[in-house]
Amino acid sequence: MSQVNFKTKVSESFERQKFMKHLNAELILIEEGICHIGLPYQKNLSQQHGFIHAGVISTLADNAAGYAAYSVMAETSSVLTVEYKINLVAPGIGDYFIAKAELVKKGRNITICRSDVYAQKDGQEKLCATAQCTLMELHNQPDQ
Amino acid sequence: MSQVNFKTKVSESFERQKFMKHLNAELILIEEGICHIGLPYQKNLSQQHGFIHAGVISTLADNAAGYAAYSVMAETSSVLTVEYKINLVAPGIGDYFIAKAELVKKGRNITICRSDVYAQKDGQEKLCATAQCTLMELHNQPDQ
Amino acid sequence: MSQVNFKTKVSESFERQKFMKHLNAELILIEEGICHIGLPYQKNLSQQHGFIHAGVISTLADNAAGYAAYSVMAETSSVLTVEYKINLVAPGIGDYFIAKAELVKKGRNITICRSDVYAQKDGQEKLCATAQCTLMELHNQPDQ
Amino acid sequence: MSQVNFKTKVSESFERQKFMKHLNAELILIEEGICHIGLPYQKNLSQQHGFIHAGVISTLADNAAGYAAYSVMAETSSVLTVEYKINLVAPGIGDYFIAKAELVKKGRNITICRSDVYAQKDGQEKLCATAQCTLMELHNQPDQ
Repeated sequence: MSQVNFKTKVSESFERQKFMKHLNAELILIEEGICHIGLPYQKNLSQQHGFIHAGVISTLADNAAGYAAYSVMAETSSVLTVEYKINLVAPGIGDYFIAKAELVKKGRNITICRSDVYAQKDGQEKLCATAQCTLMELHNQPDQ
Repeated sequence: MSQVNFKTKVSESFERQKFMKHLNAELILIEEGICHIGLPYQKNLSQQHGFIHAGVISTLADNAAGYAAYSVMAETSSVLTVEYKINLVAPGIGDYFIAKAELVKKGRNITICRSDVYAQKDGQEKLCATAQCTLMELHNQPDQ
Repeated sequence: MSQVNFKTKVSESFERQKFMKHLNAELILIEEGICHIGLPYQKNLSQQHGFIHAGVISTLADNAAGYAAYSVMAETSSVLTVEYKINLVAPGIGDYFIAKAELVKKGRNITICRSDVYAQKDGQEKLCATAQCTLMELHNQPDQ
Repeated sequence: MSQVNFKTKVSESFERQKFMKHLNAELILIEEGICHIGLPYQKNLSQQHGFIHAGVISTLADNAAGYAAYSVMAETSSVLTVEYKINLVAPGIGDYFIAKAELVKKGRNITICRSDVYAQKDGQEKLCATAQCTLMELHNQPDQ
């Protein structure tokens, strides 16, 4: 698939996700096997201590992993999260949160990605979660 | 801890979570070692095919597990999600979504809960995700 | 598939696993969507404190889950573990260890099972691990 | 802790694990936050198709992660696996199998490590599994 094509299919799919818009999430980077998604801190997205909610962090992690996988799949395929596991390693304290996912292993049907979520504050990045995700390629079932 | 007390501490903590309010999530049931949290379908919470977003399902699963664990912890403790693993077993198609979590094992520091998320539609419930969650008890750090 | 057939295919597959023999593991029960596998305590299988090794517990958990899934798959399919997650909730102290797995959700390609491992001692059973496993059905690729 | 000390405590703990000896596993490398453990292919450790058993691969992955974590813990602490998640990404076909674990995040009580298992064959290494592991530091309980 051409560079243009995989970037287009990912960004078009991202645009169709109303929940990502609801969270003010942004697709920051998409390369072959790599995807970064981020969002600014918002009071509305906080947990009981005012930090960013683990559910938001998980959403970023899973979404970035899904698109990192999707970027290397056939144009006529869509992607499905089979499962993921996430460790929350530090509270979500920061001004901006970014999930950085990358391909670990592409199989015919099953693809594995890793996704790290960082909190940015005062020009520094701190790891706040790390996830290992299993994605499935649905052949001949284009997204949309 | 008295019945009244654990129900109060959980519902007060739930109320402090702005993100749960943002999602229109409701605390439906809290018993010792059991917690149910639900929300109605909302277009804003959908993924690219209009189904409820996996991030929303994960948020419900993790939150219910956290409070199922918290319900059996000391009054002076707070709860932290160490990690969880979730399988998404069916698309989130329904009118209402409910996570039902229950205690598997309470340890001194580490507690394990299971959390199943169901999609309700036409009076029927269908499993759409199942999670296994590791929670930590932070002793002498009340979730004020 | 007839009762006879799924029991036969599972026990024949189990017999072909040299590692299970090496561990003196026994196939104890196989029903549709259920499998129990156990082994007696052996000094050779211990970790640094003399308890049964987490690797042995994991092997039992994964194997039982795999056969619980395999029992409900087509006769012409084989089964593959995609991934699993296991919580070790108590030390492996006992005379006999048994993994009890059951089907959570059978999909066309992906099947989810849960597997609990118990330590038996003085006529009592204690949960020592709990796993959530993702299995894949390989259609038209019979085992053997 | 001095270089000598953490290497000694790890190798002494490894030696006490009878199961690792039973598998002919070798402690290959131990550095701060890094541990490699390997073993040669043995017919006794195979699954139904003659490949190395997933239980063996899991044992290597978990053990290497545990010692990578243990290497950075206080001399008076011992280490416990809380849980791990492993994806089996390729069949265990090879002459030698090696788990390479490294520290992701060291916390006061909870430490996260990643562990990749490779199959070696004809001078080449192929990833066959990848794990994300949660370890706990038991303070003032040396692994005597």
